[in-house]
Amino acid sequence: MADPTPTPTPTRPLTRAGVQAARDLIAPYIHTTPILTNATLSRLASTPQPPSSTGVPRPARPTLRLWFKCENLQRIGAFKVRGAFHAIEQLKRSPAEWAATQSRGVVTHSSGNHAQALALAAQTSGIPAHIVMPSISAAPKIAATRGYGASVVFSGSTSTEREAAVAELVAATGARLIPPYDHPDIILGQGTMGLEMLEQVAGLIAAADAADTTDGDEPSGVNEQDRPPPRTLDAIITPCGGGGMLSGVALSCEGTSTRVFGAEPSFEDADDGKRGYYSGRRIETVKSLTIADGLRTPVGAIPWSIIYERRLVAGMYSVSEDEIKAALRLVYERMKLVVEPSAVVGLAVALYNEDFRAMVEREAGDAGWDLGLVFSGGNVSLEALGNLFAEP
Amino acid sequence: MADPTPTPTPTRPLTRAGVQAARDLIAPYIHTTPILTNATLSRLASTPQPPSSTGVPRPARPTLRLWFKCENLQRIGAFKVRGAFHAIEQLKRSPAEWAATQSRGVVTHSSGNHAQALALAAQTSGIPAHIVMPSISAAPKIAATRGYGASVVFSGSTSTEREAAVAELVAATGARLIPPYDHPDIILGQGTMGLEMLEQVAGLIAAADAADTTDGDEPSGVNEQDRPPPRTLDAIITPCGGGGMLSGVALSCEGTSTRVFGAEPSFEDADDGKRGYYSGRRIETVKSLTIADGLRTPVGAIPWSIIYERRLVAGMYSVSEDEIKAALRLVYERMKLVVEPSAVVGLAVALYNEDFRAMVEREAGDAGWDLGLVFSGGNVSLEALGNLFAEP
Repeated sequence: MADPTPTPTPTRPLTRAGVQAARDLIAPYIHTTPILTNATLSRLASTPQPPSSTGVPRPARPTLRLWFKCENLQRIGAFKVRGAFHAIEQLKRSPAEWAATQSRGVVTHSSGNHAQALALAAQTSGIPAHIVMPSISAAPKIAATRGYGASVVFSGSTSTEREAAVAELVAATGARLIPPYDHPDIILGQGTMGLEMLEQVAGLIAAADAADTTDGDEPSGVNEQDRPPPRTLDAIITPCGGGGMLSGVALSCEGTSTRVFGAEPSFEDADDGKRGYYSGRRIETVKSLTIADGLRTPVGAIPWSIIYERRLVAGMYSVSEDEIKAALRLVYERMKLVVEPSAVVGLAVALYNEDFRAMVEREAGDAGWDLGLVFSGGNVSLEALGNLFAEP
Repeated sequence: MADPTPTPTPTRPLTRAGVQAARDLIAPYIHTTPILTNATLSRLASTPQPPSSTGVPRPARPTLRLWFKCENLQRIGAFKVRGAFHAIEQLKRSPAEWAATQSRGVVTHSSGNHAQALALAAQTSGIPAHIVMPSISAAPKIAATRGYGASVVFSGSTSTEREAAVAELVAATGARLIPPYDHPDIILGQGTMGLEMLEQVAGLIAAADAADTTDGDEPSGVNEQDRPPPRTLDAIITPCGGGGMLSGVALSCEGTSTRVFGAEPSFEDADDGKRGYYSGRRIETVKSLTIADGLRTPVGAIPWSIIYERRLVAGMYSVSEDEIKAALRLVYERMKLVVEPSAVVGLAVALYNEDFRAMVEREAGDAGWDLGLVFSGGNVSLEALGNLFAEP
């Protein structure tokens, strides 16, 4: 018998405390991915662009110290496991729901990282997973999803065809739908990376400060309660596709002094989030073939409510395909890290977006900002990379 | 006036103690690069190959736990800085030599990582560097070398043309030649990575063992001096081009229980080291365009004396271009690390060379081996990578 309410109702408040609770739930299943820095990239970000490339007479002069959260080194090679594991752990909290899910399984539609993430999370808990993928999906992605024990069901490539296939599956199996981003448990799960970033960078800054101090003694007369809170990130930029990560990270920083920004590709109007944010109205369809293929989706309704309606995101910025490629090249050549094109849109904003850079110069002054950037994933085939960069 | 003895005489014994002394000298200038592991790659290496690919009725069944030394994350993106800094630090130990070198500078020929390494080391000590590069060198390599302040001198591509250009430069400037591999100080410098590997892996194994132990107490009655030495690598494979790294790592393991092996590409007879090793006679010329472009050189005379005559290398193995590409793909897809083709020949041996795998099965039995593999560098352009993997 099919479950009449396939989408679970929110079980957690969409708050920073909700993200903290999610973190405890998923801790056994995910990696605490490293934070890396790179002196060359921080220097480049702190160097004015050539005036010829900016079209402005005086390019901005921000000071930016970059901190990279390496979710490309996360399990399945992308942050998406955070939300997937959290959604399944939440189901376990209701014995009745869990009993039903154990026999009927979970279902989603994704041609990308969410497919593998949900497949792994389902396999880990021993429940069936049904993944609807467009029949034109790359063979390695299909193989990887099946490799985690999921059953793959093919559909056409349009969202209508995809949703019809999901509805059919839900009707036939009673499996529970775990959507890729427009769901509270997914958002809270993705937000856990924000908490890690604030803590990890605070620790790294404190360690660097301690190493800089020649005299290790505490100044006399300073009481524990008089100390300022530990210094950490002034801001975080995350990529924004459906907005699950961006809204989750925004929740993780609510009530702190860390501002959160979103980054998108501008190619073929993939910057729906930015256009919606500045026009005050969510844009519900996107049809772009940007190389940042994880960011071809419009922002979902629940992410939107956090990003825009609650104003937890301080601004949205977009970058061109060439800027994404240039940032990608720098990460490969300077950091020796494999990242997918979607992962570097935040870095591209920090390096090339004059609106962002001028804002940082204005807001941060000479002190500059410690800026966190999320390398969201590293799942790019060598063929796709080759097609992007091979000489003609 | 030109210096009549441009190649410095050996200033250090070619022993493990010499490598230890080199390590102290270069410590301020180099990174202690991380050791990474990857469960998937260790599992693949411990899985028999399909019989169809091996041509043997029963493919070998070794147990291999792989430990990757990430010299792609070293300064300039390759291990070569170890030897270059060491050669220059050694010059400083003789005031007369150093005074001459400070005014006349150093010179070498290299189209690759040694060029950038020597340029950086010279810049760090404030002395001039002259680098002879083939005029057909890729523009980014020339730019990178100049970026470290070196003066680049172009030559033809054959070794005769290159050596003539170097001789001319030495005659004109009196600069001191720091060759890329056939020199004691270079060998001792490269060997320092071997000491790091033994220590780092011993620490990681001890930490894993401690985490496995439910009861943290020491067994009673065990004295400090009765304890076995800490467990570390059973074996190391390094790539072998000119043999500087292989012979240096072999020195670093002399008198320990860790065996050292060399890995080469077999394409167009680039496996000169292996053929020489098993025929008892050094092969002095190689003309191969293997994709492992750092390994197109014949083994030098001094490395040969360590590798073969002193028998400090336990065996040499070679792999095909397809095997190198397959290993490269696994590192990009599974480890999300950028490495150059030369860096993965050791991994390719561990995964695909049946002679090596059968030997490990025989020697190690069920206990298997902890095997160290050196990712020697990460300097590959996205264009070169694209040309290797782009779809036609």
